[in-house]
Amino acid sequence: MEDADRVVAQADAAFKESVERLKAFLRFPSIGTDPAYHEDTRRCAEWLVQELRGIGFDASLRETPGMPVVVAHGGEGDGARLLYYGHYDVQPADPLDLWESPPFEPVVKEGKNGPQVVARGAVDDKGQVMTIVEAMRAWKAAHGRIPVPVTLFIEGEEEGHSVNLEPFLRANADELKAAVCVISDTGMLAPDRPAVTTTLRGLAYVEATLTGPAHDLHSGMYGGAVPNPIDELCRIVAALHDDEGRVTLEGFYDGVAATPKEQIEAWRKAGLDEAAFLASAGLEEGSGEAGYSTLERLWTRPTLDCNGVWGGYTGEGSKTVIPSKASVKLSCRLMPGQDPEAVFASIEAHFRRRCPANCKVTVRDFGLGGGIGIDASGPYVEAARRAAEAVFPHPLTLVGCGASIPVVAVIKRVLDMDSLLLGFGLDDDRIHSPNEKFDLVCYERGIKTHVRFLAEAAGLK
Amino acid sequence: MEDADRVVAQADAAFKESVERLKAFLRFPSIGTDPAYHEDTRRCAEWLVQELRGIGFDASLRETPGMPVVVAHGGEGDGARLLYYGHYDVQPADPLDLWESPPFEPVVKEGKNGPQVVARGAVDDKGQVMTIVEAMRAWKAAHGRIPVPVTLFIEGEEEGHSVNLEPFLRANADELKAAVCVISDTGMLAPDRPAVTTTLRGLAYVEATLTGPAHDLHSGMYGGAVPNPIDELCRIVAALHDDEGRVTLEGFYDGVAATPKEQIEAWRKAGLDEAAFLASAGLEEGSGEAGYSTLERLWTRPTLDCNGVWGGYTGEGSKTVIPSKASVKLSCRLMPGQDPEAVFASIEAHFRRRCPANCKVTVRDFGLGGGIGIDASGPYVEAARRAAEAVFPHPLTLVGCGASIPVVAVIKRVLDMDSLLLGFGLDDDRIHSPNEKFDLVCYERGIKTHVRFLAEAAGLK
Repeated sequence: MEDADRVVAQADAAFKESVERLKAFLRFPSIGTDPAYHEDTRRCAEWLVQELRGIGFDASLRETPGMPVVVAHGGEGDGARLLYYGHYDVQPADPLDLWESPPFEPVVKEGKNGPQVVARGAVDDKGQVMTIVEAMRAWKAAHGRIPVPVTLFIEGEEEGHSVNLEPFLRANADELKAAVCVISDTGMLAPDRPAVTTTLRGLAYVEATLTGPAHDLHSGMYGGAVPNPIDELCRIVAALHDDEGRVTLEGFYDGVAATPKEQIEAWRKAGLDEAAFLASAGLEEGSGEAGYSTLERLWTRPTLDCNGVWGGYTGEGSKTVIPSKASVKLSCRLMPGQDPEAVFASIEAHFRRRCPANCKVTVRDFGLGGGIGIDASGPYVEAARRAAEAVFPHPLTLVGCGASIPVVAVIKRVLDMDSLLLGFGLDDDRIHSPNEKFDLVCYERGIKTHVRFLAEAAGLK
Repeated sequence: MEDADRVVAQADAAFKESVERLKAFLRFPSIGTDPAYHEDTRRCAEWLVQELRGIGFDASLRETPGMPVVVAHGGEGDGARLLYYGHYDVQPADPLDLWESPPFEPVVKEGKNGPQVVARGAVDDKGQVMTIVEAMRAWKAAHGRIPVPVTLFIEGEEEGHSVNLEPFLRANADELKAAVCVISDTGMLAPDRPAVTTTLRGLAYVEATLTGPAHDLHSGMYGGAVPNPIDELCRIVAALHDDEGRVTLEGFYDGVAATPKEQIEAWRKAGLDEAAFLASAGLEEGSGEAGYSTLERLWTRPTLDCNGVWGGYTGEGSKTVIPSKASVKLSCRLMPGQDPEAVFASIEAHFRRRCPANCKVTVRDFGLGGGIGIDASGPYVEAARRAAEAVFPHPLTLVGCGASIPVVAVIKRVLDMDSLLLGFGLDDDRIHSPNEKFDLVCYERGIKTHVRFLAEAAGLK
């Protein structure tokens, strides 16, 4: 087995170029969900194919009804093949006026943890995809080969619910066969505290619109005598939580298991700093379900949050209107054991039951996916642990995650494959927000961890 | 005294031209509150000055810090001078896509009550201003003189709360001295049922913004552990009404007098068709304060309505964000006896008391004006009654109005003058909405009523 230390040294030596390549990746405004950016998104995928070919991968762009997928085969040896998943598409950048530097002109700034690269996609997911690519590159540069068979599968629709993923996986299951799917799209506890994520929350996203009068009305001529869809919507939304912060939907908590106290203690000991987490949102105090700590609320409990609300006059000054309609977008984060379809049905029932008789309501979903618990007892988690602990000052922790990565469920269902969620992001990275960043210390340690993981995995069959 | 019948015949003969002149008035996009239309608004005022000079008025454009005022003196005789108030500015036209014909390209269409002119400002207030102007014109054409001294005062900021009105009236009080102020900017019960409005509701307009996290957050990474300003705002807004439709603000109903049952009966007998009123909003059933009829809710009770709400992601599809802020615009219609400043203070207290400790709230007003009760026992109401009953098939009714006309209070306060609210609009005119219209039968009858009112007023000293 080749010397992984030499590959790590190679990665160190090449780190400046790794940063420049990440910046090139970030310059593509690959907003996959916006047709205005489909050309840019495609060119981004083409760039990635070229980069992988440059490292010796058999890489190609594979068409789907939507954005193309990058598939790249490489590596050699007796070990079982590894599949790596990532995405090259990014979230929209708005609101643009809150970015300190343009979202698609990456810059390196000085931050709390040293230099950081700031751009949309810096950590979600391009920076983390590059921890994988640059690790592969370092192996090729140091020893001329990647020590384990690997396949990279990088899609362009993750921010749009990966609608074309399942059919693609089905159609290409044989080509993508592997022992495990490695994903770098989650986070660590701190720049020096690595983590593997073993629970993900699911997502049920809903939009409801209430219609009262047939058209907008003058609030003097009609006010007090007609239903006001904004007032009614607020009432219905307010009823979704009780005074203890619990979601009132019927059956919502069915199937939600209590997390063992030892697990919660282990997480706490591993160093999740609740105060720092809240501070990253500009808060001194959290909010949520009574009786649970911040950590429990994020990793062990399901939630309901409004994501958007609109209706009536929203411009400057005043307009005395009673609008015809008001709408809300809301979503639930689900724990393993909750049924997303049942949750949607209870949301629809909630709105219909409380909709006044002289109003109408429509309810639709924009995606329903269940929570996921990953078995952490296998050899690849151990391999990740050994790799990380050779790079980081502190041991690896198994952590929960408040967010959803639906592709993990799809990969399990279609390819019958477990995922290893080995991520290098941090809570204060501002994903989905302006000024998203990736700390260079995390980028560097991510590359090195992937370097060592490949060495560890080479021995697994 | 000249023969009013001959003037009415003249008005009939000239009606086609009166409609064409109204259309010319309507073609000016005189959206006074929008700086982009200040030029058009000014040109509209200049057109009106020319029209009035053409009838022999001493008319001029008078500058203010905002939009100019049209002041025109005319008429003669022993009767006490009459002041006429109106406004040449109009509401914005949005949403444009809901107009069947362009808002500033007036067309005559066939409606329920015969032909109607459709345009922004058709009835609020240009059509009604023209009932006055064309009546003056008919007197000049038929008898060479207007039989009573009159002053017209037509402003350009009514839709923007007439911010420059009070200083102008103070500065020109002597010039505007009169026995009564006649205003045509309200409605009738039906095309054949004339009305004088004797109560107006006041208006307190408020905007509140709730801020939770310092910036937008990813709802997976933070959901369940941080305050969500949309959820919190909905809760606070929902608490503004109880289950009986009553406003919960402390002291809100203080000073609201019970309307005598005879008055309510008189209104009902006069033919307010509650079902037709609700049908004009596309509703079969109303909503509001329990224990009150539609008519009472509109004319005798104060209200609180949300006019706009916004926060978070409101575009196509889904974005899993917890926004930093959420906002609401809301306004109360006030009855005589309520104190607008106290109502604003109670709204602010309501928001502050319910704002979570880890959030911030700002509350500001966009105008505070009290409800108005007008003494209907004077000679000018009787003069209006006699004039209307010579034109309309049914007797004149004294009615309430749900809307606010703050200028009535200003005229009382500054000029010590009562107002006579003699209007010719209808509930289904869609003021402040797309496809605003003025029925030509109402326009015609309005002109003739003003013709006859001038004759009646000529005898009053």
